[in-house]
Amino acid sequence: MFFHKQELQHSATPDAPDAVYARKLQEVLGGQYGEITIAMQYGFQAWNTHIPGKYRDLLYGIAAEEFGHVEMLAIMISQLLEKAPVGLTDEAVQNDPVMAAVIGGTDVQQAIVAGAGARPVDSMGNPWQGAFITSSGNLLADFTANANGEMQGRLQAARLYHMTDDKGVKDLLSFLIARDTMHQNQWLAAIQELQDDGIEQFPVPSTFPQSKENQEVNYQYLNFSDGVHAKEGSWAKGPTPDGKGEFSYHDGPTTTAPMPAPTTPDERFHGTTGKSPLLEKTKGAVKDALHKG
Amino acid sequence: MFFHKQELQHSATPDAPDAVYARKLQEVLGGQYGEITIAMQYGFQAWNTHIPGKYRDLLYGIAAEEFGHVEMLAIMISQLLEKAPVGLTDEAVQNDPVMAAVIGGTDVQQAIVAGAGARPVDSMGNPWQGAFITSSGNLLADFTANANGEMQGRLQAARLYHMTDDKGVKDLLSFLIARDTMHQNQWLAAIQELQDDGIEQFPVPSTFPQSKENQEVNYQYLNFSDGVHAKEGSWAKGPTPDGKGEFSYHDGPTTTAPMPAPTTPDERFHGTTGKSPLLEKTKGAVKDALHKG
Amino acid sequence: MFFHKQELQHSATPDAPDAVYARKLQEVLGGQYGEITIAMQYGFQAWNTHIPGKYRDLLYGIAAEEFGHVEMLAIMISQLLEKAPVGLTDEAVQNDPVMAAVIGGTDVQQAIVAGAGARPVDSMGNPWQGAFITSSGNLLADFTANANGEMQGRLQAARLYHMTDDKGVKDLLSFLIARDTMHQNQWLAAIQELQDDGIEQFPVPSTFPQSKENQEVNYQYLNFSDGVHAKEGSWAKGPTPDGKGEFSYHDGPTTTAPMPAPTTPDERFHGTTGKSPLLEKTKGAVKDALHKG
Amino acid sequence: MFFHKQELQHSATPDAPDAVYARKLQEVLGGQYGEITIAMQYGFQAWNTHIPGKYRDLLYGIAAEEFGHVEMLAIMISQLLEKAPVGLTDEAVQNDPVMAAVIGGTDVQQAIVAGAGARPVDSMGNPWQGAFITSSGNLLADFTANANGEMQGRLQAARLYHMTDDKGVKDLLSFLIARDTMHQNQWLAAIQELQDDGIEQFPVPSTFPQSKENQEVNYQYLNFSDGVHAKEGSWAKGPTPDGKGEFSYHDGPTTTAPMPAPTTPDERFHGTTGKSPLLEKTKGAVKDALHKG
Amino acid sequence: MFFHKQELQHSATPDAPDAVYARKLQEVLGGQYGEITIAMQYGFQAWNTHIPGKYRDLLYGIAAEEFGHVEMLAIMISQLLEKAPVGLTDEAVQNDPVMAAVIGGTDVQQAIVAGAGARPVDSMGNPWQGAFITSSGNLLADFTANANGEMQGRLQAARLYHMTDDKGVKDLLSFLIARDTMHQNQWLAAIQELQDDGIEQFPVPSTFPQSKENQEVNYQYLNFSDGVHAKEGSWAKGPTPDGKGEFSYHDGPTTTAPMPAPTTPDERFHGTTGKSPLLEKTKGAVKDALHKG
Amino acid sequence: MFFHKQELQHSATPDAPDAVYARKLQEVLGGQYGEITIAMQYGFQAWNTHIPGKYRDLLYGIAAEEFGHVEMLAIMISQLLEKAPVGLTDEAVQNDPVMAAVIGGTDVQQAIVAGAGARPVDSMGNPWQGAFITSSGNLLADFTANANGEMQGRLQAARLYHMTDDKGVKDLLSFLIARDTMHQNQWLAAIQELQDDGIEQFPVPSTFPQSKENQEVNYQYLNFSDGVHAKEGSWAKGPTPDGKGEFSYHDGPTTTAPMPAPTTPDERFHGTTGKSPLLEKTKGAVKDALHKG
Repeated sequence: MFFHKQELQHSATPDAPDAVYARKLQEVLGGQYGEITIAMQYGFQAWNTHIPGKYRDLLYGIAAEEFGHVEMLAIMISQLLEKAPVGLTDEAVQNDPVMAAVIGGTDVQQAIVAGAGARPVDSMGNPWQGAFITSSGNLLADFTANANGEMQGRLQAARLYHMTDDKGVKDLLSFLIARDTMHQNQWLAAIQELQDDGIEQFPVPSTFPQSKENQEVNYQYLNFSDGVHAKEGSWAKGPTPDGKGEFSYHDGPTTTAPMPAPTTPDERFHGTTGKSPLLEKTKGAVKDALHKG
Repeated sequence: MFFHKQELQHSATPDAPDAVYARKLQEVLGGQYGEITIAMQYGFQAWNTHIPGKYRDLLYGIAAEEFGHVEMLAIMISQLLEKAPVGLTDEAVQNDPVMAAVIGGTDVQQAIVAGAGARPVDSMGNPWQGAFITSSGNLLADFTANANGEMQGRLQAARLYHMTDDKGVKDLLSFLIARDTMHQNQWLAAIQELQDDGIEQFPVPSTFPQSKENQEVNYQYLNFSDGVHAKEGSWAKGPTPDGKGEFSYHDGPTTTAPMPAPTTPDERFHGTTGKSPLLEKTKGAVKDALHKG
Repeated sequence: MFFHKQELQHSATPDAPDAVYARKLQEVLGGQYGEITIAMQYGFQAWNTHIPGKYRDLLYGIAAEEFGHVEMLAIMISQLLEKAPVGLTDEAVQNDPVMAAVIGGTDVQQAIVAGAGARPVDSMGNPWQGAFITSSGNLLADFTANANGEMQGRLQAARLYHMTDDKGVKDLLSFLIARDTMHQNQWLAAIQELQDDGIEQFPVPSTFPQSKENQEVNYQYLNFSDGVHAKEGSWAKGPTPDGKGEFSYHDGPTTTAPMPAPTTPDERFHGTTGKSPLLEKTKGAVKDALHKG
Repeated sequence: MFFHKQELQHSATPDAPDAVYARKLQEVLGGQYGEITIAMQYGFQAWNTHIPGKYRDLLYGIAAEEFGHVEMLAIMISQLLEKAPVGLTDEAVQNDPVMAAVIGGTDVQQAIVAGAGARPVDSMGNPWQGAFITSSGNLLADFTANANGEMQGRLQAARLYHMTDDKGVKDLLSFLIARDTMHQNQWLAAIQELQDDGIEQFPVPSTFPQSKENQEVNYQYLNFSDGVHAKEGSWAKGPTPDGKGEFSYHDGPTTTAPMPAPTTPDERFHGTTGKSPLLEKTKGAVKDALHKG
Repeated sequence: MFFHKQELQHSATPDAPDAVYARKLQEVLGGQYGEITIAMQYGFQAWNTHIPGKYRDLLYGIAAEEFGHVEMLAIMISQLLEKAPVGLTDEAVQNDPVMAAVIGGTDVQQAIVAGAGARPVDSMGNPWQGAFITSSGNLLADFTANANGEMQGRLQAARLYHMTDDKGVKDLLSFLIARDTMHQNQWLAAIQELQDDGIEQFPVPSTFPQSKENQEVNYQYLNFSDGVHAKEGSWAKGPTPDGKGEFSYHDGPTTTAPMPAPTTPDERFHGTTGKSPLLEKTKGAVKDALHKG
Repeated sequence: MFFHKQELQHSATPDAPDAVYARKLQEVLGGQYGEITIAMQYGFQAWNTHIPGKYRDLLYGIAAEEFGHVEMLAIMISQLLEKAPVGLTDEAVQNDPVMAAVIGGTDVQQAIVAGAGARPVDSMGNPWQGAFITSSGNLLADFTANANGEMQGRLQAARLYHMTDDKGVKDLLSFLIARDTMHQNQWLAAIQELQDDGIEQFPVPSTFPQSKENQEVNYQYLNFSDGVHAKEGSWAKGPTPDGKGEFSYHDGPTTTAPMPAPTTPDERFHGTTGKSPLLEKTKGAVKDALHKG
């Protein structure tokens, strides 16, 4: 169960309205790595988790905080939009380049659809979608997804930090960036702890027996491009991070197989096949060419 | 530039057709973590990369291999569909439970739209989309995304391995799982090397000065749920993985701020506000209630 | 801020696993009118609201309950999937029609992607999306959207109630249907109260002066089909529900305007226009025909 | 069957081209509550309706009118785009702030893709989608959805009315707003008539026996937030609008159930479970912690 | 303006209900090449057309017919669903393989969401979307898109024809396939007529001067794969269909350019660049490697 | 298999950065008819093809070239973004109208998400999706789709050519437009060759016996609008392009069928039907009206 309190974790009030920035801030609210993604991802991982105890408690504990971050951003955005202009005449634009810029820089749906309100979309107006989240049931994979989520999120918040001079906005971003620092560290710690606890190891999933994977190619670096520096990396020689193999370097593939013959589905699919009745009537040369393929 | 060779990296021929399995295999072709995602993600990261040398060569080298994996899966799927039934009468179904099962288990667009062919969709028929990939320009974040991608991909391939008895299919999956083992290790190695080379560190982005983030909360574990075990993890005490802080544990938030007052946008947005002209005509009690908030 | 408690509002445990039903239940979790829609809709309306007091408190109070309903359904689904079969041989299917049916009736991504877990998608596997919600800033419009949401939701839950014999599932649905009864009534009461309080009236938005709308057609029922019974309804004669007009009935349109001439954009758009230079060289008859249009 | 006449219901010609406004107008053409949604929603409800007579005739009669509204808006947009600039040099922009504003404010696909033409998208360029419509087979629910659709539509048209000075555009909007007034009233009348006719009642669906819903909580207002004013509304006390119950008010939930134990799916899903073979080898303390959960 | 008549162009009644087939038929209603696509594509082309006369009249005339086809399919689908089973017990399934098959083969949203009704989605449940249509303003390009649309549509209808024994369904498909024959021919005729009228020619757009395109490569067949038969086609030698060039054949590219250096965006994007301040502190060898790239 | 070479087919370097144009160029990278669509379409057609020889070799040969075009555009875009401004103060905007314009004209996700990099989206920020491609298994239909794809692509590139003065950008577009000229011609040649080879003919699919289509209406032009010029086209009289019929012209439909009665699904769907138990209690007149329909 979730309970709501009409307070925020941190002040979320801008010094002044800024409709152009309100659109940019939608990215960290409703974008691929926005707070809705983060909150829902931790929620689904918690609901789908298969072990009780500290890992599940960790997921529940942070999911609820993140729903509060969704709220802070939505409220910040609606305040940034508070003085958003409704309509602009040509005359107004002629005399005011800032106003001219505002015309194009805003999310017009924040005005037309939400009446100067926040929306569950990213900074280009794409609706948030369930396909943004990851919840696989394997915690080592998912915690890596979470670490990535917090890194992309902190990166975007840092970029947004440089795009405004508004002290109120910067203050909130400073808070959110700090929480992203915490959460990056938290997932890195949890990734290590899962391994230390003997619960899961690399390569994920560690419960799939490596004897069943192709033993020839599982530690080969195959370079399908002509870049000469790829072989200089630690991924091309030496022991592998999972502690189970040794990297080797190869130019291009070490294995090959012939291309299978084209398929011939049931004629009632009306595909173009070498068995077309029309083809029977045609000149032998064409048919020959088709069949020698 | 890309060049194509009419050979495969590994045999991709099933022992027998299986239209139900053909649908499941779409997940690792066109799903969130399918091979199209992986190939396009490495491609965009390469095209957007800001440093020459080994890291860019690594991205180019693996992107091209992955486009070949897209091809292997598409060709495998079209063969699994080769004998797909076109239409089924009730009588046929009555006598054949397997046939009955096939009716529901297939991707009907593979039949109606592609004529027994592979499609750029996932196992539930959702089209592949650009929003599945990550390319941020920050390599430490993106390599973490890549490691996650290879983990989720290997996990899905392992699950699919248990869903068939077909030796040809299992053989291809065994190959792909092995490559995922390699690629997981490769990104883990590259994540370490980026740090060893002094190019980027945790927390990402390391070029954003931590002095600008909120120093109070950047290493606090805040538990917004009532699970008592969350405090037992290594994310609740001790030094942080980035080497720059010390974790502390707290029940709930350590900071708070009052909820800002509701916004009052321009009246021409026709939102419901306390300034509505209609409200002026109404009884005082209502207005008072609205304003005491 | 949101706080989480590791309890549920009502028991959410099935008597037995049922992977086919788990897929159907996704509809009321992640569908157009599922609980994610309802929770997010009330959340955004609360964050965007322009008046303090009882209406905003109402939105905050119910939003949090609905996030708990999301949780109950996700947890129910993961339990319904607990014994989901991984892979099925032809032999197993031959001997078990139920098993045969299960093959086709499941959400295969619940297996391959989530490892027998709930997902933020609807019953056909479409991801939940932000475009499902409504938050316009006008409370009379939005509460009508909410009433509709609770009606569609109760309708779907009632249909799902008839699709299972599982007592645990039926018990949860019985609870959710009851809450939908409450919430339908609540929004109907609030719709009336907004009008009684003099805050907003029909037609929405009531702050747009009706003198600016076309006075000729604003209460005319225009029948663009040939159904003779349309004129029998209360929408074709008598006073209008907004108390501001009188319905009249008309077969077809009462107004008409000529179709404007085709546009002629800049030639650099390379559209097909009557000004094409190629056309100058062609026979007069063609050109004439084009221009008489 | 549908028949087309090359006339419009009302004049749809702007006084002057305005590419920036052409983009905004896309919202009421191809947005969530645009005319395509309204036309298709009434069409599908008509095709799916289960009773002959006045209600079906009503749906058919208005659906066809709305397809004509789609046409008027598309034609208006293509005229607003008629003089859209193709390309702009820096010099032109330097001397003309309006031109500068135009660069950013337009839908660039209207230019690049449609060659200065209307498109089936909303004002942020998202394609119209079938998920925007509602057609459930239950007329009381669907007519409520329709009433909401006409309210949101009139609200958006009213906002757009304030965003232009063009008399031709305002004249068309004045017509569309008037039709929305009519259609709001029409659905409100039909909602009442369905009940008066004894066909359907609140709560929807009225054919689901309320004895099967949880009798404890079906008229309780549960406040999951800390807003003190929620209890002041008519939804917290007194008789319910459906005439079948009495509202009561409660702080938080009146029922509770323990969180079910985590699930343990088949090991071949490779989820992280308490049964992991790796775990057997680990230290007892960890295992204990995991199991006490 | 559109007018509706409560008659159909052809009988659209199945001999018997078939919920599994109802799902398949959604493809030609709401799929990429379904009737909604066709109707909306012709509508938008008509509304955006730049020349009066026969071509615009052609588009208006056929658009309205296609909206009637949408209607016929929706009505057929709702009848196929009329006896759709609501819920199935295990016992029923045990005794009835056909019933077992039905469970998986249906569109469960047709039941749960639409109450046994048609929906604006394809056969895998993806909503119809505006991105399915083409309307560019260039009639030669668009008529080619239309010809393709009618071909894909007739192909899908033909496949569906083989998937049922129902005489009523086959009768409707026989009608729709015949109309597709007509419409394929119609667009092929119109493609020729546009050229004969001197309005547009290949290559499209013919108003773009070919002197501005790269004259070296505009008629070269470049083979980027190793298939030896590609050179045997009429696309590899001889005069080109546009009458303006001569095909030539080449193995691989005839031109090449060096890969540009990686970009170095503003440091405030926090990308991984060779200018990272962290890098300054690192060992020279690494920096050298990065810069020799 | 695909192999990558770190060279481009043509120079892809702008003379100067231009963030506004970088957004526009996304259309031909990730739009409906962008290079990703073209490359993936040819790839899937090759993988699904049913005949060996020249047609399959053609598809493989061009697919790989197109992946190289994706690369050239991505690299061009990242260079156009190289000097993209991060943040803008009001003061800067006041003094610089170009800068003001830039604010609104850019794809803000190129900045916030990709750190000044290319993205797999179109010019309005919609993600590329698998639903953009066509691969039906019937080569005559698909080659027509391909011809259309190259026409729409060349048209968009031509429009983009006029939207910039940058010589480097124009040089690349000049190259791509030339390749589109080639590819248009190539598919037109292949369309003819398929027919000359006797493999497939119009109407597609030619393997569906025309005796099974409705012989009455398969060559009738039916005009559902009131445009008088439609009858003047070659599609209204004379022999049909497929050589199998004769066009005839008709005002409106030549066939008709009565609208079927509304459906009556199972009562457990809770639809609004004439069998509603509530209805039994209501006044006879209403019931009669409902049933006379």
